[in-house]
Amino acid sequence: MKKRRRLGRGVAVVGSGMSKFGMFRDRDSKDLFVEAYREALSSVDKGMDPKDIDALYLGNFTNDFFIHQAHWAPLISDVIGHVPKPATRTEGACASSALAIREGVFAIASGFYDIVLVGGVEEMSKRSTEEVAEGLALASTPYEGKIGFTFPGVFGATACAYFARYGATREHLMNVTIKSHNNAPLNPKGQYRASIRDLMLAKQEKARKKGRDVPAWEDEKAFLSDPRANPEVAWPLHLFDCCPISDGAACLLLVAEELAGSFTDAPLHIIGLGQGSGMGLHAKADLTCFEATRYAADEAYGMAGIEPEDVQIAEVHDCFSIAEIIHLEDLGFCKPGEGYKMVEEGRTRLDGDKPINTSGGLKCKGHPVGATGVSQVHEIWKQLRQEAGPRQVPIKDLRIGATHNLGGTGGTCTFTIFERR
Amino acid sequence: MKKRRRLGRGVAVVGSGMSKFGMFRDRDSKDLFVEAYREALSSVDKGMDPKDIDALYLGNFTNDFFIHQAHWAPLISDVIGHVPKPATRTEGACASSALAIREGVFAIASGFYDIVLVGGVEEMSKRSTEEVAEGLALASTPYEGKIGFTFPGVFGATACAYFARYGATREHLMNVTIKSHNNAPLNPKGQYRASIRDLMLAKQEKARKKGRDVPAWEDEKAFLSDPRANPEVAWPLHLFDCCPISDGAACLLLVAEELAGSFTDAPLHIIGLGQGSGMGLHAKADLTCFEATRYAADEAYGMAGIEPEDVQIAEVHDCFSIAEIIHLEDLGFCKPGEGYKMVEEGRTRLDGDKPINTSGGLKCKGHPVGATGVSQVHEIWKQLRQEAGPRQVPIKDLRIGATHNLGGTGGTCTFTIFERR
Repeated sequence: MKKRRRLGRGVAVVGSGMSKFGMFRDRDSKDLFVEAYREALSSVDKGMDPKDIDALYLGNFTNDFFIHQAHWAPLISDVIGHVPKPATRTEGACASSALAIREGVFAIASGFYDIVLVGGVEEMSKRSTEEVAEGLALASTPYEGKIGFTFPGVFGATACAYFARYGATREHLMNVTIKSHNNAPLNPKGQYRASIRDLMLAKQEKARKKGRDVPAWEDEKAFLSDPRANPEVAWPLHLFDCCPISDGAACLLLVAEELAGSFTDAPLHIIGLGQGSGMGLHAKADLTCFEATRYAADEAYGMAGIEPEDVQIAEVHDCFSIAEIIHLEDLGFCKPGEGYKMVEEGRTRLDGDKPINTSGGLKCKGHPVGATGVSQVHEIWKQLRQEAGPRQVPIKDLRIGATHNLGGTGGTCTFTIFERR
Repeated sequence: MKKRRRLGRGVAVVGSGMSKFGMFRDRDSKDLFVEAYREALSSVDKGMDPKDIDALYLGNFTNDFFIHQAHWAPLISDVIGHVPKPATRTEGACASSALAIREGVFAIASGFYDIVLVGGVEEMSKRSTEEVAEGLALASTPYEGKIGFTFPGVFGATACAYFARYGATREHLMNVTIKSHNNAPLNPKGQYRASIRDLMLAKQEKARKKGRDVPAWEDEKAFLSDPRANPEVAWPLHLFDCCPISDGAACLLLVAEELAGSFTDAPLHIIGLGQGSGMGLHAKADLTCFEATRYAADEAYGMAGIEPEDVQIAEVHDCFSIAEIIHLEDLGFCKPGEGYKMVEEGRTRLDGDKPINTSGGLKCKGHPVGATGVSQVHEIWKQLRQEAGPRQVPIKDLRIGATHNLGGTGGTCTFTIFERR
């Protein structure tokens, strides 16, 4: 595949909103979406009349089987006063709302619509951890989830294969976790807001206060190596290698590029779009990469006419620490087998040359699955517009950012590239 | 809304396939989709290399909660050898695959892709009738399904309101059923293939053979009025007013209009696209129409630049007999309150001036919900290409056909117009 994809009409992001992510047992999908929608509307610099929105695309994965209500696009359309205009749900497991973005882009680029709202929502905390694990496994192939091979197991096996092939170790996974948690205190909307060091010190302080033995962790890695603090989930993955169960929503306002100036002087232009599909572990020729991500990246770079090194900042799908490492490779940010070194060298930190998951990533910001794809763009929106506050990256002439979203065990992957001109 | 919608690049159908519809407890979604896909490929007059297909859109509604496997787009992508190319699921309850068509059209019209496979699939017969009723009700609003108001109840209430307002009766509903069943023997892929008269004669013959009292039904309406033959489901709807539970799949091959000639000399051009969203009964200003259908129709006619009378043949969403009558009105084929008269006058019959549901409709052809939207286009494909065999309509200069698909209790409605030039 080397056909260069193009859009007949450019599309830009002119507004973005995100609810707080977390566990909100007293809030439902409508509450969460409205919170994100209000912020998106108010983020449009020159204002937007909601009546001008032509269509809605909504990513959601689990509401039908977790909360026994399906057909959510028209329900959300109703709650934001959008009826009778069209509302379409897309589903690609954890990449559900990245698909909504793509369909919103196509709908505008086709010339049919001018202004489209795309978003995602998920409410997961009303179910037990066991139910969530079992439910999410419906997104893996019939050869994985149905035989008890839930997501931590699949990604644990992936990590084992990666370790065996490239010589990485658990300590390299910890580097990802520590990096993401270092960004966490800087994101007020995130689910977890403490660094690993803060968590460690807090636990030691608590033990001290209660008169118990104070664990003698000398640094974050000692903390993460202690099974009392960081129990095993699926070897080699431990608790802090895994993203949490979350509730949340996010949305974006997309418009035809030629109209963007009516809404803001600082739009994000969508310059690269890519999506791929993949098979389960049983059929993969290589366990240490995701073919769908590679296909998506190829498509998006081809459209944008840029190379991986041109992407200055990215949010990548860190459902597990090992996933972030492999995606760095699949997206071309480094060579295969070098992702763990890139993290170790600090290059993906907030002050690195290629900051990854400045939001805290799925690990800290949270992972309300249907909202994640759009929430990744929310972070890029903030960063490229220099609105990220204390977590603003110090890159000079920051212009190009990207988002990578993965669904299932790699069944659906997307890569989208944005430019602030 | 009177903005005229246009596509920057035209899109045409160059291939179409459909599995047999029915209850197939020994076949799964993959089997069914492959059957439809093979027919679609072989229907391309000048041939198509499947490697040239850029993307897949798949409509499905219930597989995650009925058969405990979600994330179906990549699974289907795998089974047809399409990995790693993109595969996206759309969900709009019973209109799920009509949404797939729209997204396929947008993806091509945007200039991004040239050849897209769109389809739908559903496997429902592995669950009990009660489970299906409860599951499908997840597609209605929280104010309907969750209080026990399942689909027959909602459409029964709709029929009552229609009767009260316009003076129609149960006998008018029977006209719809009799008409659809008259088309049924002519569709070899349909789930039910007997006319009401044939069913009646068969029951009488059976009674005669078994030495029982032979019911003295003098005609189809007498048969349908007998609660032994046609029991009440939800007043005024009886068994023969309701579509069945079905398994099946259907798919279409869409290409950019300028490429159509490489595949066939008889493509169907997509000249009108429309979609709307709606609210549940509790919030409707008028129970006797579907606002989402009206919006969709307005959008599609506007794009096509034609009037309802220009549509020569249509498949409309007859989940219940009353729905077909109301849709005739909402689509502008007659005035509000005159749909039942249009049917009574025989205008919607195979030999009428506006044949409706020549396939037998959802009632006889079957309603595997996620496949229905695309299967409606399959019928229009056959008719406009003069390939419908014994059910070919005798309309002179047949050129324009349309499909109407409804999801939930009107939450999602689409209307699509096709032209054979």
